[in-house]
Amino acid sequence: MPAPIVFYDIPRKANVPSDNAWSPNTWKTRYSLNIKGLPYRTVWVEYPDIEALYKKLGVESADKGPTGAPIYTLPLIYDPNTKVHVSDSAAIARYLDKTYPDTPTLIPRETDALHAAFQRAFAAVFNPGNGGFSWLMMPETYVRLNPASQGYFRRTREEWFGTTLEELAPRGSQKRQKHWEAVKAAFHEVAGWLQAGGQERLFFLGGETICYADIVNAAFVGWIRNTFGEDSAEWRDVLSWDEGRWGKLAEAFRKYESVDEGSPLEL
Amino acid sequence: MPAPIVFYDIPRKANVPSDNAWSPNTWKTRYSLNIKGLPYRTVWVEYPDIEALYKKLGVESADKGPTGAPIYTLPLIYDPNTKVHVSDSAAIARYLDKTYPDTPTLIPRETDALHAAFQRAFAAVFNPGNGGFSWLMMPETYVRLNPASQGYFRRTREEWFGTTLEELAPRGSQKRQKHWEAVKAAFHEVAGWLQAGGQERLFFLGGETICYADIVNAAFVGWIRNTFGEDSAEWRDVLSWDEGRWGKLAEAFRKYESVDEGSPLEL
Repeated sequence: MPAPIVFYDIPRKANVPSDNAWSPNTWKTRYSLNIKGLPYRTVWVEYPDIEALYKKLGVESADKGPTGAPIYTLPLIYDPNTKVHVSDSAAIARYLDKTYPDTPTLIPRETDALHAAFQRAFAAVFNPGNGGFSWLMMPETYVRLNPASQGYFRRTREEWFGTTLEELAPRGSQKRQKHWEAVKAAFHEVAGWLQAGGQERLFFLGGETICYADIVNAAFVGWIRNTFGEDSAEWRDVLSWDEGRWGKLAEAFRKYESVDEGSPLEL
Repeated sequence: MPAPIVFYDIPRKANVPSDNAWSPNTWKTRYSLNIKGLPYRTVWVEYPDIEALYKKLGVESADKGPTGAPIYTLPLIYDPNTKVHVSDSAAIARYLDKTYPDTPTLIPRETDALHAAFQRAFAAVFNPGNGGFSWLMMPETYVRLNPASQGYFRRTREEWFGTTLEELAPRGSQKRQKHWEAVKAAFHEVAGWLQAGGQERLFFLGGETICYADIVNAAFVGWIRNTFGEDSAEWRDVLSWDEGRWGKLAEAFRKYESVDEGSPLEL
């Protein structure tokens, strides 16, 4: 058994550890680790500390913002077995596939390039540029973050979107309804891919095999359920979309949703 | 040996049959047929006759325009062995895979959904909405079409783009340069997918296997070479992009570029 991998994740307000995990991007890595059954422990990092963490670890950011300046994002892992840091959930999935070949493969090598295209397509569909998932997500995320993260989150996101968080998708507004319809349309388009060639697939590669594309998908579905709750109007709406396939996907991923207590980052 | 499939394609002005074929969309099907080594004969259809052809054959269009009205496009094939018509190059590739399982597979079943996502990503990258491949392609296509197609082509495309063909990308203009840069950036992004996971791949599935994603890619590369010519500044530019990978791709596809003389459509 390898030594536990260190998994840096962003917390939110929570009464129990399992409620701490919320970010769809870091969920991609948590799913990856849980599906592979690799031991890991979570270190919870508040937004303003992410950059300091990278610098302390001496890790370069793989992400660049529109100005060309580096952006410091999670997930990030440290694998003590190889003494390697890896950021970006797709890169982490590939790293884990390569380093732990006896665990379930997430990105089969022959689908590597198609997976890269999938990521581009998924981004294009969920954030078509004039509204959609992110618009809805930002204000919902803000209110659930710990105070230590809220100021940073507000400042950076308001700069990106050029408006206040409160203006993005106010509850009960037509604007919010429009973003929600865009999310529904996005999922519907993904459902179309899953039915390509007349097959009814729950998972991208067909059959029972979960691949990284499914993880991305499940992370977005899971975000809606975890944010609004299983009894919410939003989640009930999602369950009614595309012949109930998103509820089935969420069920299939439930066994990969364990969240350890972890510990807060000490800089 | 099955009876020859009827392949409906759009001609351009040409002195020899091999120069008739130009449309990247129908090239996807010609490549598919040539790679599979299936016998076929081309029927050349001018733009204004495509709708009449569908109606004569009693075929429904799978494509819908922004208003919801059907759009009649090529490629379309008729397979006399099964008495089936199929339109849309991806649907044709899937049909041929299924009907002729002893020929090279273009869309392996387990990549069906990822291929669908690929198509979405490719479209997003090549036509980002504010300029790109189509802007450049329309005026270049127009001047090369037969007079029988030019009026129809001009009318429909000027309606789509809301401007004259001459205004889209005038030779020597900054506008044209911007569209060309967008095409370069699009190919560069596809090159990035092909290098995902640190592998250097010429083809999407790696190795020597050509899949439908490669055919789409090659159809776009081929359009530039066939339109401007092998001695053009444009083609020399393409050869210099992404460490010469597009020239290598074009070379790998050369053996699948035979064009039969065919016959004009008789309605």
